[in-house]
Amino acid sequence: MESIPSASYSFTLRVEFPHRAGSLGKILTAIGEADGMVGAVDIVRMREDRTVRDITVNARDSEHGQSVVEAVEGLPEVSVVNVSDRTFLMHIGGKIEVRSKLQIRTRDDLSMVYTPGVARVCRAIHDDPERAFNLTIKRNTVAVVSDGTAVLGLGDIGPRAAMPVMEGKAALFKQFANVDAFPICLDTKDTDEIVATVKALAPGFGGINLEDISAPRCFEIEERLKKDLDIPVFHDDQHGTAVVVLAALINSLKIVGKKVEDLRLVVNGVGASGVACAKIIMAAGATNVVGCDSKGIVHEGREDLNPAKRWFAENTNPEGRTGDLAEAVRGADLFLGLSAPNVLTVDDLKTMNEDPIIFAMANPDPEIRPEDAMGHARIIATGRSDYPNQINNVLCFPGIFRGALDVRAREIDEGMKLAAANAMAEVIPEEDLSEDYIIPSVFDERVAPAVAEAVSEKAKETGMARRIQDRAETGLSATTF
Amino acid sequence: MESIPSASYSFTLRVEFPHRAGSLGKILTAIGEADGMVGAVDIVRMREDRTVRDITVNARDSEHGQSVVEAVEGLPEVSVVNVSDRTFLMHIGGKIEVRSKLQIRTRDDLSMVYTPGVARVCRAIHDDPERAFNLTIKRNTVAVVSDGTAVLGLGDIGPRAAMPVMEGKAALFKQFANVDAFPICLDTKDTDEIVATVKALAPGFGGINLEDISAPRCFEIEERLKKDLDIPVFHDDQHGTAVVVLAALINSLKIVGKKVEDLRLVVNGVGASGVACAKIIMAAGATNVVGCDSKGIVHEGREDLNPAKRWFAENTNPEGRTGDLAEAVRGADLFLGLSAPNVLTVDDLKTMNEDPIIFAMANPDPEIRPEDAMGHARIIATGRSDYPNQINNVLCFPGIFRGALDVRAREIDEGMKLAAANAMAEVIPEEDLSEDYIIPSVFDERVAPAVAEAVSEKAKETGMARRIQDRAETGLSATTF
Repeated sequence: MESIPSASYSFTLRVEFPHRAGSLGKILTAIGEADGMVGAVDIVRMREDRTVRDITVNARDSEHGQSVVEAVEGLPEVSVVNVSDRTFLMHIGGKIEVRSKLQIRTRDDLSMVYTPGVARVCRAIHDDPERAFNLTIKRNTVAVVSDGTAVLGLGDIGPRAAMPVMEGKAALFKQFANVDAFPICLDTKDTDEIVATVKALAPGFGGINLEDISAPRCFEIEERLKKDLDIPVFHDDQHGTAVVVLAALINSLKIVGKKVEDLRLVVNGVGASGVACAKIIMAAGATNVVGCDSKGIVHEGREDLNPAKRWFAENTNPEGRTGDLAEAVRGADLFLGLSAPNVLTVDDLKTMNEDPIIFAMANPDPEIRPEDAMGHARIIATGRSDYPNQINNVLCFPGIFRGALDVRAREIDEGMKLAAANAMAEVIPEEDLSEDYIIPSVFDERVAPAVAEAVSEKAKETGMARRIQDRAETGLSATTF
Repeated sequence: MESIPSASYSFTLRVEFPHRAGSLGKILTAIGEADGMVGAVDIVRMREDRTVRDITVNARDSEHGQSVVEAVEGLPEVSVVNVSDRTFLMHIGGKIEVRSKLQIRTRDDLSMVYTPGVARVCRAIHDDPERAFNLTIKRNTVAVVSDGTAVLGLGDIGPRAAMPVMEGKAALFKQFANVDAFPICLDTKDTDEIVATVKALAPGFGGINLEDISAPRCFEIEERLKKDLDIPVFHDDQHGTAVVVLAALINSLKIVGKKVEDLRLVVNGVGASGVACAKIIMAAGATNVVGCDSKGIVHEGREDLNPAKRWFAENTNPEGRTGDLAEAVRGADLFLGLSAPNVLTVDDLKTMNEDPIIFAMANPDPEIRPEDAMGHARIIATGRSDYPNQINNVLCFPGIFRGALDVRAREIDEGMKLAAANAMAEVIPEEDLSEDYIIPSVFDERVAPAVAEAVSEKAKETGMARRIQDRAETGLSATTF
């Protein structure tokens, strides 16, 4: 499909051309005729005869970018001095930094922040290890941990190549919820080694965000770490997606006037996020879920099922359906795709129940194009930012960890996830809901605080919280000097 | 020994007292009579009859602080409302934070910093893993790794209690040399597990700073990691101390007019830093070193020697001396103490060669008090900030890693350490040297850049550098789009 140029393929052309009326216009016209979208136009140098300008251009992809460059190079008296890829430029030296919160300007500063003053703080933590949650970065810091085996749509690219994604995640944690996050990309794919490594580095962290670790290892890794650690361990690819999907569903049901208990749902793609989505929707009350993989419905009769699919076979499909995806979606209310492009057809849509809801999350191209689903589906959502209703994990992970850290929750359990989904959905007042607006924008500043508060409150309710009230921290009192 | 109050035992008294001329003076007098040093005095609230003020006080230690508080509490009509420990207050929530280097305000920003634009950066690193050094935080980031078994003067306090020290280290890395550093405190003491864990987390880092890991495990851990990793691995307790000691020695020799080859040196305390100091001074040309532990001279006849001490026995003591410390220092030019307080006497000093140099590094109280050594030793240095000539690792680790990272050195070898020591010494012009000024102040801004430059140059010379020139990084060129 022809995609709208976005900034992800954005480059800056430095062009030199005659200092004459109309020259710049010719260049911008050439860019437009090559289908490039012009952004900023800046002056670098203006002389009597020649001018140098930086022109930012958005292209569809690198090939398209190349054709735009060639179009400009082909103009008479115009020379392309340099082409800088903006995305790459933003990545020079990485996207995050570590900073001291305190100025260290004098010996007095140094003797409090470092030796010898720091020794008293160490001794206090040694005497009462829970004080680490107050006196160190454990209070506010999450490790973003990956082994690079399931990165975005790229698959197994390894730990070094995964770093830009994990750095980006850390930047988003800080930006959206003031959570300090640090990327840890592991040079091992062995489940036991990953578990041992994360356990070993846990003392300085208040939470662990597992990311882009392929199924089925991710299930065991998360389970074992949740058991062995006393801080939250959260695989975002599973649960972050699930929370946002549920929030979108909650609002969708308000529009179509259906109840979750009455829904027939199809989940196409039964990997890590498919299982988590099915589980959370079932925890919210759904009873009729059917899972599909590339071979069709995942039912108990099949013998080729990995543990995730086996869970589907044993816990879903109450009508005992067999057959392919087309069979699964017949009469369904919701199609949730976490799979591949172009697997759902308009004919399939026509067999669904009235007011069907389509969440087509395949990345980068969804299971059905919104343009094609329109007129047949009542509500359509994808993972893409260039369509309405973007289901994006960024809506979940900052707020959910903020809420967990604020009450020093020992884990992020089902109740806290449900609370997060409900709070996220309720950010949009019911009167503002529409078929094109079922989920808040990722930049909606109400989301993270609302999610955090709901998660904190839930954790206090259920006893998952270890820190109930905000004691004013003044250091030692006179009696405990 | 009576110590001068320093800010490390600093607290803030909130006092309420009559709003009457002379009231404040009485309070400050009481504090002074109790030997507390008053710092800031701030108004909190002033009313017609009562005033509340915050008074910052420096005390020698917590007992002394308590006595000061009691002295103020004892005053008529004065009440102590609160006592806040400034050092603890500075540690609330930890001392460092992680920040995004980029603003993420729009979908365009997000699509470059995160999906989908980041995928192209990941692909580029997957195709050429060395690009991680340019496109991720690997370019500038060091892991500060400890297992909490040898923290300051506290010993084995464990990973949680070690965090404040490692956070402080990270803050200093950033403040003094703009190196991003992140603390990793490991919940294991097993050598194999530590080695495996650090190897696993290495992909996102440009260097590893090992810290406060007890001997003898620290030697094996450093050796194995140096062998298995392609980034610098540097145990600061060993080598940082050694570099600064050598720098202090270089300048001391300029003052006393001796050559390192002619020196007789005694190293009292033959743990990790003792071995490293002896090695670096011998690499600088010394041939006559004698090591001592609590049992006396470490010589080949002894059978109770761990590997570090065995190294001493086999590589030092060319005269084959035996006996105690007093025997070792007879006729020596330099006493280097990394041991315990009060082990060196004035009588010992008198048996040393003329113009003896004393580096008494025991923490917190040195092997001999500078007040006692004065008049006998020509030059005295300690690790303390309240005497001249403070030998402090802060002078080394920021600049030495800055220099290594700048040229992407694969390790920090002996040549680079010697270069660092020489550059550090030469920060002080020879005409400014004096018996009281042999080592720059930790706040001397010339040190880190001078050390970094010398280390980078040395690495380029020896081929340890992998990045020779500063190519202007513009992202992709037109031809490699």
